Amino acid sequence: MPRHPSYAPSVSGMSSSLYSALAERLASRPGEVYPLHVGDTWMEPPEGCRMEDFRVAEHPGMHRYAPVQGMPGLLEAIVERVRAKTGVATERSQVLVTTGATGALGAIIGGLVAPGEEVLILAPYWPLISGIVTAFHGRPVPVPFLDCEGPEALVAAVRERLTERSVALYLNTPNNPSGRVLPRGWVEALAELARREGLWLLSDEVYEDYVYEGEHTYARALAPERTLSSYSFSKAYGMAGNRCGYVVGPEEAVAQLRKVSTHSFYSAPTAAQLAGERVLRGPGDAWVARASARYRDTGTKAAARLGVPPPQGSTFLFLDVSAHLDEGGLAGLLERCVERNLLVAPGPSFGPFPHHIRLCFTCSPPEVVLRGVEVLAEILRG
Amino acid sequence: MPRHPSYAPSVSGMSSSLYSALAERLASRPGEVYPLHVGDTWMEPPEGCRMEDFRVAEHPGMHRYAPVQGMPGLLEAIVERVRAKTGVATERSQVLVTTGATGALGAIIGGLVAPGEEVLILAPYWPLISGIVTAFHGRPVPVPFLDCEGPEALVAAVRERLTERSVALYLNTPNNPSGRVLPRGWVEALAELARREGLWLLSDEVYEDYVYEGEHTYARALAPERTLSSYSFSKAYGMAGNRCGYVVGPEEAVAQLRKVSTHSFYSAPTAAQLAGERVLRGPGDAWVARASARYRDTGTKAAARLGVPPPQGSTFLFLDVSAHLDEGGLAGLLERCVERNLLVAPGPSFGPFPHHIRLCFTCSPPEVVLRGVEVLAEILRG
Repeated sequence: MPRHPSYAPSVSGMSSSLYSALAERLASRPGEVYPLHVGDTWMEPPEGCRMEDFRVAEHPGMHRYAPVQGMPGLLEAIVERVRAKTGVATERSQVLVTTGATGALGAIIGGLVAPGEEVLILAPYWPLISGIVTAFHGRPVPVPFLDCEGPEALVAAVRERLTERSVALYLNTPNNPSGRVLPRGWVEALAELARREGLWLLSDEVYEDYVYEGEHTYARALAPERTLSSYSFSKAYGMAGNRCGYVVGPEEAVAQLRKVSTHSFYSAPTAAQLAGERVLRGPGDAWVARASARYRDTGTKAAARLGVPPPQGSTFLFLDVSAHLDEGGLAGLLERCVERNLLVAPGPSFGPFPHHIRLCFTCSPPEVVLRGVEVLAEILRG
Repeated sequence: MPRHPSYAPSVSGMSSSLYSALAERLASRPGEVYPLHVGDTWMEPPEGCRMEDFRVAEHPGMHRYAPVQGMPGLLEAIVERVRAKTGVATERSQVLVTTGATGALGAIIGGLVAPGEEVLILAPYWPLISGIVTAFHGRPVPVPFLDCEGPEALVAAVRERLTERSVALYLNTPNNPSGRVLPRGWVEALAELARREGLWLLSDEVYEDYVYEGEHTYARALAPERTLSSYSFSKAYGMAGNRCGYVVGPEEAVAQLRKVSTHSFYSAPTAAQLAGERVLRGPGDAWVARASARYRDTGTKAAARLGVPPPQGSTFLFLDVSAHLDEGGLAGLLERCVERNLLVAPGPSFGPFPHHIRLCFTCSPPEVVLRGVEVLAEILRG
């Protein structure tokens, strides 16, 4: 009997998609449904920047490969934007265009982390980052930060988990899932820690434009020699399906990342890059201003109805529901939600949060989201 | 002085892009240029299946995320096609839609190969496969096959390189770069060997539709329990820039691959998947028939001019130029080519072939390619 071939152990040890069974049940429910577990937007991207707006007659060869680093026009638009937003000297060779921020962080982890090395991850975190580290054979080390009262406590929490194997520190601000915006002093303390300990600083800034309270801090301005910042047209302009994002960092590091991106998705889609350039040079800012106002309004109303503080940024609320759980625990709560056509994301997807749930307040039009929030409020009231 | 953080050693050991310096020089040459080093097509994809043909009015939400496995309509079209072409029982759960065949093979290597394990690769090979194995921390082991006179010699060549660490065997037929189509008996012998030795069989079949002599053999029909077959809309329908392809294999293996794809590019672009479904259900076969006839004609003419046998399949010729090298070696030859506005790909990109070059006869319109071939013929004549 021949041996059956096996799998990469770090991959076979990963749990599969977190919501898929519940999401399938939700899809089969009659009536209006509230898929608030998804992190996406209900808004279509700006007119003029949609796939239908890019024609072969004007862009011959637009279905052919793009250069692996990115198309020159898009790279130039990104460089101009990054310089203007961050004030940091930035050249084209410091930018890599990727298949969304997922592609960016895949290339970052693949390029910087050797098998068995550790990545410190501020938690709660964007759920894919932990799996990216694992899929590329590294070890994710969550560092809970919600209860830290200031930058000293945050640095102490990171230090507690630092080992000889630590090579990078990941932060995501504005934060998915918590809606928190890390204050400048906190990001400064993390940059200082990274410099002192010789760590890469992986700064996931895909919600940079969605800040409702406080101000976004660009980590690269604080430690340009060791920061890789990732961005996404998905979150900024409602283009998640385009699979286009980018990473900015030191030239030598970006050259390493490019080897991994070339060998995991080759290049970002050509039409998506044309759309990215056009949105940056055209209606992007206006679209963001409109989206941001709507997102903020919905987020504020949702938070008020649920009795929690309004989000400072991003498109999410993260609720501690421990007071509302019965013997069925979080699974029982999700079950009660699905029975009422609502799906929310379970806390453990975001780190050691067994009694939290996340909801996205931009995945459906505001009136639908708020009806879903009403259902959730009723369920939590019990 | 703080330590400077480092890179993943397997990635930092990889050489960077092979042609980029020469390609940049080519781009700056005056007059008509012959970029025959690129593997792409000059033909635009079928009308009705271009980005401009997918409108938000008809496809609301078409810029949002697609499901990580692929869109249901595309999965169904792929399943029907695979069943019809291969005769192998195939369910949706055995298919994963990816960012081209590069995304497919990244997910395959990431999901199946643990760090340090070896992948046997029939050489000459598609140049990215070696880097994919390295980027995911595996070890590529080339197995030259051009001089094998039959399946027994091929099996012996593989066996010679088999170790305790071997987990997979990669073949690419129709072959990039050699234009060879592996005869059925050869693929059968490899499948039998894989079964006996407990190896995964990684069958890269992106040129399945481009066979000019002989017949394509679907490896999955021979060893469905251990074969992962990869395909691409890029090569089949001139959609390389769309970044869409797929892999078909055992359900349990595909579930492992999906974890890696989710964590390296998330999902294939949504509009590209709409285009994929439409081309499979519509003008795809007619487009392939037209493209195939043109490709064959150009390939045959190019081969005749260069005095080599016509290609059996794919879009490439692979020439042993050892008789035409002076003390400058292959680098000197490439240099002479660039000075005459021509770029070809160096043999070492495809395995242990220090005296070969590859040219693609479909990357520019036939008359341009043939003018480039004329230049090459003159250079080789010396």
